[in-house]
Amino acid sequence: MSQIAVPPLLSVLQGEAQARPPVWFMRQAGRYLPEYRELRQTAPDFIAFCLNPEKAAEATLQPLRRFPFDAAILFSDILVLPMALGQKVWFETGEGPKLGELPAIETMQGEMDKVAEMLAPMGETLKRVRAALPADKTLIGFAGAPWTIVTYMIEKGSSDRSNVRSKAYTDAALIDQLLGVVVEATARYLAMQAAAGAQVLQLFESWAEGLADDQFQRLVIEPHKALAARLRELGVTAPVIGFPRGAPAMLETYLDQVPVQGLGLDTTTPLHLGQKLQSRVAIQGALDPLLLRAGGAALDRRVDALLETWGRGRYIFNLGHGILPDTPMSHVEQVLKRIVEFKA
Amino acid sequence: MSQIAVPPLLSVLQGEAQARPPVWFMRQAGRYLPEYRELRQTAPDFIAFCLNPEKAAEATLQPLRRFPFDAAILFSDILVLPMALGQKVWFETGEGPKLGELPAIETMQGEMDKVAEMLAPMGETLKRVRAALPADKTLIGFAGAPWTIVTYMIEKGSSDRSNVRSKAYTDAALIDQLLGVVVEATARYLAMQAAAGAQVLQLFESWAEGLADDQFQRLVIEPHKALAARLRELGVTAPVIGFPRGAPAMLETYLDQVPVQGLGLDTTTPLHLGQKLQSRVAIQGALDPLLLRAGGAALDRRVDALLETWGRGRYIFNLGHGILPDTPMSHVEQVLKRIVEFKA
Repeated sequence: MSQIAVPPLLSVLQGEAQARPPVWFMRQAGRYLPEYRELRQTAPDFIAFCLNPEKAAEATLQPLRRFPFDAAILFSDILVLPMALGQKVWFETGEGPKLGELPAIETMQGEMDKVAEMLAPMGETLKRVRAALPADKTLIGFAGAPWTIVTYMIEKGSSDRSNVRSKAYTDAALIDQLLGVVVEATARYLAMQAAAGAQVLQLFESWAEGLADDQFQRLVIEPHKALAARLRELGVTAPVIGFPRGAPAMLETYLDQVPVQGLGLDTTTPLHLGQKLQSRVAIQGALDPLLLRAGGAALDRRVDALLETWGRGRYIFNLGHGILPDTPMSHVEQVLKRIVEFKA
Repeated sequence: MSQIAVPPLLSVLQGEAQARPPVWFMRQAGRYLPEYRELRQTAPDFIAFCLNPEKAAEATLQPLRRFPFDAAILFSDILVLPMALGQKVWFETGEGPKLGELPAIETMQGEMDKVAEMLAPMGETLKRVRAALPADKTLIGFAGAPWTIVTYMIEKGSSDRSNVRSKAYTDAALIDQLLGVVVEATARYLAMQAAAGAQVLQLFESWAEGLADDQFQRLVIEPHKALAARLRELGVTAPVIGFPRGAPAMLETYLDQVPVQGLGLDTTTPLHLGQKLQSRVAIQGALDPLLLRAGGAALDRRVDALLETWGRGRYIFNLGHGILPDTPMSHVEQVLKRIVEFKA
């Protein structure tokens, strides 16, 4: 046995409820922090910023200097994966991401060996963060889940996802092949992250919403299963948090089939459903980012409800979606104080 | 007892499963029909078209002349309600609806007696349709549910609903007052529709998605309960179909509290959840409109799955969302043939 105690967040994912829930916030390294805004000005191109280990490591560590978060999460973007597969990705100020033409399937399959190499800067970021991070803090790596990545690759930055959902019906072979390519590339990317020091791996399925149950099975569950199996083959033992956002009614079915150690719950997941899920796996979520931004007594009441309902079981406190850029830092303090003082 | 048999769709809502499920499609009177596109050219302003009983009745009846649908639904728009409350509403070609300034709460409360009067053209449309409709076809009236209407009134046509969801936290009193005004106006509007011949009333909660469970309770369930109670006070006995779209994980909680006779299921509602709900209430839905547009063998397979899973209980076949304007009519025929030939 190691002499170093297992950090609380990792421990929850290994099945041990804590005296108080560990906590981190999605997008905790972000624009609500003045030091982040300042750092970003030194590297205006977002992709270049993500690929700069010095700056990305600094962004990753910033929120932990200010707040008692229990985990740092790699500062990066899920779209570095299509980029590594040869599809052009760029960000235009004030707009979402844009993607270039989809490469041929065969071309991407042929480039597979280069994926981990092209994404090596993220490994370097993780190593730097781990070296600077206290032992009681958990380091989280992440990737976009296959369907979400395929959605970006097909929609190329449009916010309308009905095109890719249609294509899943009308051009099923293309979508299934693409999912296969992305599963393999993502497995290699995550294995590289684990080797570089990521202790937990989160899969962001940001666009699990809007799917009929048979499509959720095919486009979300099957690729997650394939990815989990491939990670095992690659020798990865880090616990995985699956986060199929926007599909709470499918979470029990998801858990029946996908061997994850943690389950991300979005804002809309009912508390009573979270309780059921918590008896099977560690849960993570689900404070409404709009309420965090709003603040006040309503925020305290909801934080208390989450702690009272879920705080005695396997629970990682988090938001149900990323923190909003115009969230006052005092509201983050208000919530963290309540969590830190909670006694299960 | 009446000598006229109860039409199949109404019968399902009264608790009687049928030999084969009755069927209608949301937006069945719409742009996928050439005769509708032609009719609309005679009255290009959409609101004026809705307020023209002759044209609206014709649009309502068109799909039943072509297909064996079991119900006609009033051709109108949910935004006639804010209009009747004094908020300007207009449609710009190629864009969604736009709404003007929100009237003061007191002004709207003072105008309440005029609501049914201003919406009298919809009553006239229903009378004309009923007179032309065979006795075995059910006539459905509808309104937007209160939270959806309040969302439009606050967002004024923006497709971003985070503003109104934020306001529900930061300006709770305004939102609750607005919901109260809309509940009362909607009850009067639906009572008028029932008096004019609507045999079933559907409540479209199109924007139930994205809410935390406590907000769903407050913004969706409570107003639906208040509306149902007010309809009873007004002597309305027509069955009500509640359709909180985008919140399948909250449907059981919704049914625990809202006395509806039918429950609309959206595209994302898992089949096994529909089965559970069906033991408590008539269900309606949930074929993916993208699949209807795609057609082919995959469409047949999914229609069969819906019929096999739900078709022996209280079930009204429908889409999970409105039919898309570019849906081939042959696909509608393909689905209806399968339903009509189904034997429970």
